[in-house]
Amino acid sequence: MSKSLAASHSQGKHEPDNIFGVNAAANEKAKIVGKENIVNASIGAFLDPQGELITLPTVEKTMYSLDFKDAANYAPIAGLPDFIKAAIDVTFGEHKPDAYINGVATPGGSGGIHHAIWNYTEVGDTFLTSDWFWSPYQTMAKEMGRKIDTFTSFSEKGNFNVRACLGKVAELAKVQKNVLLIINSPAHNPTGFSLTDEEWEQVIAGLKELIEKGQNNIILFVDIAYLDFAPPGSRKFFKLFSQLPASFLVIVAFSMSKGYTMYGYRTGCMIGISSDKDIIDEFFNINQYSNRGTWSNGTRSGMQCLVKLWKNPELMDQVNKEREEFRLSLENRARTFLDEAKEVGLEVCPYHSGFFITVPTSKPDEIGLKLQDDNIFIVPLGRGLRIAVCAIPAEKLSGMATKIKEAKDLLGG
Amino acid sequence: MSKSLAASHSQGKHEPDNIFGVNAAANEKAKIVGKENIVNASIGAFLDPQGELITLPTVEKTMYSLDFKDAANYAPIAGLPDFIKAAIDVTFGEHKPDAYINGVATPGGSGGIHHAIWNYTEVGDTFLTSDWFWSPYQTMAKEMGRKIDTFTSFSEKGNFNVRACLGKVAELAKVQKNVLLIINSPAHNPTGFSLTDEEWEQVIAGLKELIEKGQNNIILFVDIAYLDFAPPGSRKFFKLFSQLPASFLVIVAFSMSKGYTMYGYRTGCMIGISSDKDIIDEFFNINQYSNRGTWSNGTRSGMQCLVKLWKNPELMDQVNKEREEFRLSLENRARTFLDEAKEVGLEVCPYHSGFFITVPTSKPDEIGLKLQDDNIFIVPLGRGLRIAVCAIPAEKLSGMATKIKEAKDLLGG
Repeated sequence: MSKSLAASHSQGKHEPDNIFGVNAAANEKAKIVGKENIVNASIGAFLDPQGELITLPTVEKTMYSLDFKDAANYAPIAGLPDFIKAAIDVTFGEHKPDAYINGVATPGGSGGIHHAIWNYTEVGDTFLTSDWFWSPYQTMAKEMGRKIDTFTSFSEKGNFNVRACLGKVAELAKVQKNVLLIINSPAHNPTGFSLTDEEWEQVIAGLKELIEKGQNNIILFVDIAYLDFAPPGSRKFFKLFSQLPASFLVIVAFSMSKGYTMYGYRTGCMIGISSDKDIIDEFFNINQYSNRGTWSNGTRSGMQCLVKLWKNPELMDQVNKEREEFRLSLENRARTFLDEAKEVGLEVCPYHSGFFITVPTSKPDEIGLKLQDDNIFIVPLGRGLRIAVCAIPAEKLSGMATKIKEAKDLLGG
Repeated sequence: MSKSLAASHSQGKHEPDNIFGVNAAANEKAKIVGKENIVNASIGAFLDPQGELITLPTVEKTMYSLDFKDAANYAPIAGLPDFIKAAIDVTFGEHKPDAYINGVATPGGSGGIHHAIWNYTEVGDTFLTSDWFWSPYQTMAKEMGRKIDTFTSFSEKGNFNVRACLGKVAELAKVQKNVLLIINSPAHNPTGFSLTDEEWEQVIAGLKELIEKGQNNIILFVDIAYLDFAPPGSRKFFKLFSQLPASFLVIVAFSMSKGYTMYGYRTGCMIGISSDKDIIDEFFNINQYSNRGTWSNGTRSGMQCLVKLWKNPELMDQVNKEREEFRLSLENRARTFLDEAKEVGLEVCPYHSGFFITVPTSKPDEIGLKLQDDNIFIVPLGRGLRIAVCAIPAEKLSGMATKIKEAKDLLGG
């Protein structure tokens, strides 16, 4: 055994950077066969047909127009007050819940997930999410000494499995006071699934029913990292978070990473929603405290960029227009892949919108490797292959479903 | 009692943003008496005589010359490999320890302190630092369920109290396997103290002696946030970290906040130094894991800025020249205050260099408030007043020591 100085809970922690690994393999192969012949479906960012990152021109202009003396300064620990206001505003739009609402700036959405797990579950507790989920939830669970449990994501008809979700919640509520439930919708990573407004209504009704028994607190964490790439109308469900019981806290994680193409600026805001002022004051205080005790303050330039856009509706309109163009091209890419998948009989998880489509399989690693022979590079998940349609232009997507189907048929699974 | 949904360890966490509070009071008063009549010694950043943030022109130019498509992208979880190389290089200069060395990018220095506490002490453990210390160490201790214990910073002669330091280490080593010792030097916050090379030698010799008994691991965390504002020659002590025993890990926290005036970009790197390859591989793996499980990745633009400067020695020379000018003006400011303090008999903590000078007193809050009548705004610490000479031009500093002495004499303490 190799020598270790780590504390007992930290020994053996190791997670090779999977996505960067597949990406590196794609780049190696590109040197041999030429970049134009490679389909690199590993990157979780929106790329143009040349494989360059797509950024919103107005965001770039705004970022680089910030007075450096302002951008370079420290932000307050909880974030710039105007940033918090702006984040709340652009998140909810016209569908702001009727409730006490406040926010705390975090590095992207990740920081908010961290704080929610840390501050609203006990050490050793379990939290819940759907069985298709963004794998860092698992990393965070282990990092903080928590456990993750999942429910079946989809019903047989390919809808959100409300019954399975509420069933798991009820089960956990028997052994744990605080039940933290993470739902990543709309445009779920990795499947592209979104709950309908009716499904949200059912979930919330079920959670309220549980709370009325008086034994539990519910913390519903809504990961909306891909919200801005879901179709218009995708914000209506926020209104359902109005006037919930005091023991029912909703946290919505706003992030500028995808919607403003500011991935590397680490700018987000966890937004708390409650009918009870005490709960929201506590939300602000304990998460501000966790900021100070974890990473101190956040990226001021990212915050100022949002503030500047928010204070100038013309600029914000421009950002929204620029983004809409990309959203439509993303829709087009997804349709290309999905139509072909249907044609050749390749099963995919229910997809509505977003950066990724998932092909379920029991042999993700084998099939992923096999596809590399065809110059297709895909990130294998625990039980599927994640196709980053965000990263592949439509012309390279055509033929891909067929090749995946062939590899699946060849290897089984 | 107000309602709470927080986990038991998170209930009641609250820390008003003290510095921003004093700053707000200064700004309020400025509206009445005019900004030019206010001495605002609260801000922990380097300001020019007009009260504007001083930034390094070459850093600004470099930041805003980055291709936005690159700046906006995600960095790898552990940080860009070239950034880690550059951080190691600029930290050690010609005094790189003879050892295995690797780094993990963190948001400023704070992120590295967080990971060191989290990964190298057990829950409930105590870690050590000097009794004058940067108060967020305490916040981090509470946040992570650790305790902080301190040793007397200074000997009667005003030197670093090596005996008190090693005494506390020996005491803690009896009850705890891993002893994490945080030393903030050179240009300590809040006192401006620096260990001499001889004091470093004594500390390291004492720690090695303890380790030779075979019962403990030592993790020495060196917080060098203000290194670049210490006089030339302040890097020599790094060489003392060569070829230490395998149970002795040194972590040095590089930060771009002060040295590159990039406070709000949250760019730093925790650098591990060990004679044992296993220990450094573990250091990289567990801290990369903690990145993923806490805030995911870091600010790519900040990392790319350092890489660009590092790859272009002319640019880096320019940065160093620009900084040196500010360092000398800081020296001048400190001298103005210290000379007057000596003249009027005002006691100050031993100061060598850096952003802050501390006046010890048993009545910091009362004296701080009294000074606000004189339009002087200072952050009260637990047992002293922190004078941010970085934030006050020399002409406003003159007379200040006298007024503090008067307030102290009037109120006692």
